[in-house]
Order: sequence, then structure tokens, then C-alpha cells
Amino acid sequence: LPGLPRSKEKPPPGEFELIARLCAGLKPGRRTILGPGDDCAVLAPVKRPLLVTIDSMVEGVHFRRPWFRPEALGRKALTVNLSDIAACGGWPLASVVNLAIPATLEPRFIERLYAGLRRAAVAAELDVVGGNITRASALAITVALIGEARRSILRRDTARPGDQIFVTGTVGDAAAGLKILEGRRRARGAARRFLIERFLNPTSRLRAGQRLAAMRPAPAAIDLSDGLWQDLGHLLDASHAGAEIDADAIPLSAAYRAAIGDDPELALGGGEDYELLFCARGRWSPAELSQRLGVAVHRIGRVMRASDGIRLTGGTRRGRAPRTAGWDQLRSRDSK
Amino acid sequence: LPGLPRSKEKPPPGEFELIARLCAGLKPGRRTILGPGDDCAVLAPVKRPLLVTIDSMVEGVHFRRPWFRPEALGRKALTVNLSDIAACGGWPLASVVNLAIPATLEPRFIERLYAGLRRAAVAAELDVVGGNITRASALAITVALIGEARRSILRRDTARPGDQIFVTGTVGDAAAGLKILEGRRRARGAARRFLIERFLNPTSRLRAGQRLAAMRPAPAAIDLSDGLWQDLGHLLDASHAGAEIDADAIPLSAAYRAAIGDDPELALGGGEDYELLFCARGRWSPAELSQRLGVAVHRIGRVMRASDGIRLTGGTRRGRAPRTAGWDQLRSRDSK
Repeated sequence: LPGLPRSKEKPPPGEFELIARLCAGLKPGRRTILGPGDDCAVLAPVKRPLLVTIDSMVEGVHFRRPWFRPEALGRKALTVNLSDIAACGGWPLASVVNLAIPATLEPRFIERLYAGLRRAAVAAELDVVGGNITRASALAITVALIGEARRSILRRDTARPGDQIFVTGTVGDAAAGLKILEGRRRARGAARRFLIERFLNPTSRLRAGQRLAAMRPAPAAIDLSDGLWQDLGHLLDASHAGAEIDADAIPLSAAYRAAIGDDPELALGGGEDYELLFCARGRWSPAELSQRLGVAVHRIGRVMRASDGIRLTGGTRRGRAPRTAGWDQLRSRDSK
Repeated sequence: LPGLPRSKEKPPPGEFELIARLCAGLKPGRRTILGPGDDCAVLAPVKRPLLVTIDSMVEGVHFRRPWFRPEALGRKALTVNLSDIAACGGWPLASVVNLAIPATLEPRFIERLYAGLRRAAVAAELDVVGGNITRASALAITVALIGEARRSILRRDTARPGDQIFVTGTVGDAAAGLKILEGRRRARGAARRFLIERFLNPTSRLRAGQRLAAMRPAPAAIDLSDGLWQDLGHLLDASHAGAEIDADAIPLSAAYRAAIGDDPELALGGGEDYELLFCARGRWSPAELSQRLGVAVHRIGRVMRASDGIRLTGGTRRGRAPRTAGWDQLRSRDSK
């Protein structure tokens, strides 16, 4: 009985071959005992508490394909997860990736997406240790990320009345960039490029989170994915606290002011900035914190008792909550 | 400036509230420092090597919604991941879940799906520590699972010529069940119920994998998700080996024989059995292994040199590879 040549017995390149090819450029890091290609990836033991998070970017919900170079899409899919590790003050270790791809997507697109994801992983010093690819009607990239806590863990439920509320960077830029991409707002030149770039290529505040985790007591923290107002609400809910926010203190970029104006409504309601909002106890000044965290930090308010509710003060929009209450991921962008 | 009541400032129940509600029944296990509701879940340090895997079930690709009770869908989404841990001989610890849900799906469906997933998690002694929910056009459940290796790690790349090849349970049942569900094959009574149940509610061979991991040397192993022939090919590729498989030795259930007949083609090609295929060195008998692993074990062939290729022997289909070369997840079931 002659053995058939193995090449004839193989199905056309499928999941296994494709993943092997996509992961060919990956050198297992020092933490990785067994990389992609087996039933599970294997990591060296982790002696510190593990952080675990999962997040997904779905075509037609979180993005439209023409907006993104494939590399940028891969990078952002990792960044939104890194931001969760940052919000806990942790260090990323390893990730596994699930790609759902429509039949019409060219293999080259997937390779470029993976290349962007790998580069972002190298920059964040984490290993992409495995993946899964499946057919679907819309492109979706789901990343699960494992990190470790080397210092304290930043939580949402530790804010106390009297804490000062700070935010890193500027807010509303990604939402403004999205509006420009959707053709619902116009902007020109550098402002346009800056705002769009903040939506397409956000930065996770890993270093800032890690440095916050060294402070005593560890600040309550959350990353701004759904929008400042909504994410603040999540943190205050978890902490059973209220807050007073000064609308005039919300840090707006020059590009935001050029495209949107001085109204912070979009900055309060718009999502996907991936900045950190945190509540520090004691007499920290924004300047001290900016230096310590290595990123601009602004004070936007203070934590109150739950019975005080959440108040918005300041010249522009006294006492009124923003009309757009944040980016709710359960509402499709296509239907808005 | 009066504070607004917080209820007015909140958006309609979105991702955060829904996840909190779905996870309300979850008591953090002894390994979980911080469960769902923060940016990351936090697990106690793991002193042994970590196993990590991710897998997805997509509506229209892996299942059609009317086939499944929502609870069964949640259970199977976890089981297919548990099977990867089983194939490495590990113990599951924790999982995070990404749900992509169409706008038309009733909340009750999601709650029941999560209930099934939680029950399966409790049965497997693992914690569901977090989740993410997003909008999508088709229902998709993506589970990332973390486990630990307490003994050896079963790998795909350690098979050597001379090893005996074994498989747990019976194969082809899930593929037969799928054919019945699709109306492409008829069956009646107990056989019909058994085969459909094997597709809808497969068993992961966790205990068997853990016991294999205690054998010396640790057998090469893989779980049967894509189909025996294709998964065997993955294992042999990784091991740079060939094999001789006795078609007459493929274990077929009475239900399979009743619905499909004695031809093992579907058993060789059909996927989703989630049985273990492993290659043991030395004079193990199927009876000894069945007792040791706590599940029926059959010997189906032996590992050869790579230059021998993969040969199929036996009365029925001498020397011929099965026409269906396995379940390729990149081909949609809808298009087949």
C-alpha cells in the first residue's frame, strides 16, 4: 500500500497554516516556553498577581475599514487592551489574538494587520503567543491580554471624598477625529491630521499607570474608552462616591479648539481617548504629577460624597450634564 | 449649583451595566483577587507554567442559532477552549469572555447563554473573571482561557517513529450530528439524539489529558477539533513524522454506524469531536490506557518516519485519504 504524498492530503491553506505564517516573524520572548502552533501557548510562571483583560474591535461598530491602514488597525486592537493594563498600573506580558475575517478580505490585509500588531507588541515588550482565525461576515479583532502587577493595583473602587481628580493628556481629540472621518465635522491642516491620528492611533498610558501604581495610597483609576463623563461614572459607581467637575478645567488640545471650539461637551462625552483618569489623595499639584508620570496632567475636579451626585461647574455649561453621555459600545456607529 | 440626580446623567444600560448584571452570579473564586467590573481582572500569582488559549464560535460559521438552547451555546463556547487545555494536559484557572451580539438579540438570550457558560465554568473549577460585550452583525462568543501545567505539558511536536497512536472515545459523532441538524442525513430515535447531542454538547477530556501528562515520557497529543485526519496532520507536521492509520480501528459509535454506516470517512474527516489523539511510547494496551484515563481508548495506528508519509490501511479504504480532509474553520458552513 503506497503512502500518499502528504502534500496531496492537505487541505488548502487554512487556519493552521495561516496562523503559522502570520506568527513566523514572532520570536518567543524569554517568558514564552511554547509560542503559537500548539493547542495552548505556554508561559513561564508569573510570581506576581496576574491582570487579565479582553477587548474587541468590530468593523461597522468600532471602525470602517477604509479609515485604517491594516497595520494601524492591528496596532489599535492591541492598544485598547494595553490601556486596560495601564489603568490597573500593570505590565503587559502576553496576548492571544482572535481574528474573524470575511471571505472577501485579501490575505495581504491580514498579514499587514498582524505586522502592525506585532510591532506594537514589541514596543510594549509583550509576546503575542497564540491566535485563532475564523470566518465571519465582518472583520473583528479580539485581543486577550495578560499582564502582571509589580506594584499596587489601580482599581476603580478606591476613590474617597476629598481626592483630587486628574486626567492625563487632552480629551475629546479622538471623538473629534472620528467626527471628521465620518464627515460630520470639518477641519484643516495640522489640526485635522492630529485629531484623526488620535482616533486611528491612540497611545496607551502604560508608563503613567505604572508610576501611579507606585504612589501611596494607590490612586483610583480608569482609562477613558467610553468617554470622560461615562467612565468617571463607572469609577464613582464602583467607589460609591460623587464628584464635582470643573468644565473649564477639562484639558482641550489646540486642534480640538480649532475644529470644535471651546465647548467641552464632546470632550466630556466622546470616547476612545485612552487617557487615564485618576483620583489622588493629598496635595499633589498637576505640575508634580506631570513630571512624575511623564505626561501632561490636569486637575479637573474632586471626589464628593455619593449624596452630592456628579456636578459639572464652570463658566460654559453650569450644572448641566453633557448631552452626549459617552460612547456606548452597544450602540453601533452605523446606526447613530 | 444643584447637583443633578445621577440617574438622569446615566446612559441607557450599556456594556458596563449588562456585564455587571451577567456577572452578578459569579462569586470570585479563591484564585481571583478582583473579578469582573474593573479595567482588568486580577488573579493570584501562578507558580506553575501558564497555558493560554483563545477560541471563537461565530453564528453562521460554527453554528446556527435555532440549533442551540442559549445555555448550550455558552457551555460549548467554553468547552472548545477547555479542550485545548486538555490537549496540553493542564488545569483550567480562569477565563475572559468577549460577546459580540446583534441588535436584535433579546437580553434574555444573553443571560441564558452566560448562565450556561457559568455552569460549565463551575463544573470545570475555573473562574469567569471578566468580559466584554460589543455590537456586531452576527452573534460571536470568544473565550480566552488561562490554565496551568501541574505535570508535563502535552505537545504536538514530540511524537517519534514507533509511538502507538490512540484516540479517546469515538469519532465522527459530532460531524454526523451536524449533518442531521443540516438535514443532510437522516437518523431516528436514540441514535439521532446521541449524535446531535455530541455536536451540541461535546465533552472536553480534561481528566484524561491531566492523566496523560503524568505518563513518562509525556505523549504527544492534540484535540480533535478540525477532524481526525487534519488534526493528526497537524501533530505529525509539528513532530516531523509520518503515520500508518488502520481505518478499521477507528472507533465508531453504534449511533454513527446506524446513521452513517461502517464507512469511517466522516469519522476521519469530520470535526468537533473534542476527543484526544495521542502518541504513547512503549507497550501500552488500550485496556490499560482506558483504565488510567477513565475513558475508552482505542489504538488506531503508529507513528512512522516523515518519509513514510501518512498511510491509511484497512479493509474499507486502503491507501486512500478521506475525501473530506477535515473541517477547515476558514470555510464557512453556510457556503459548503
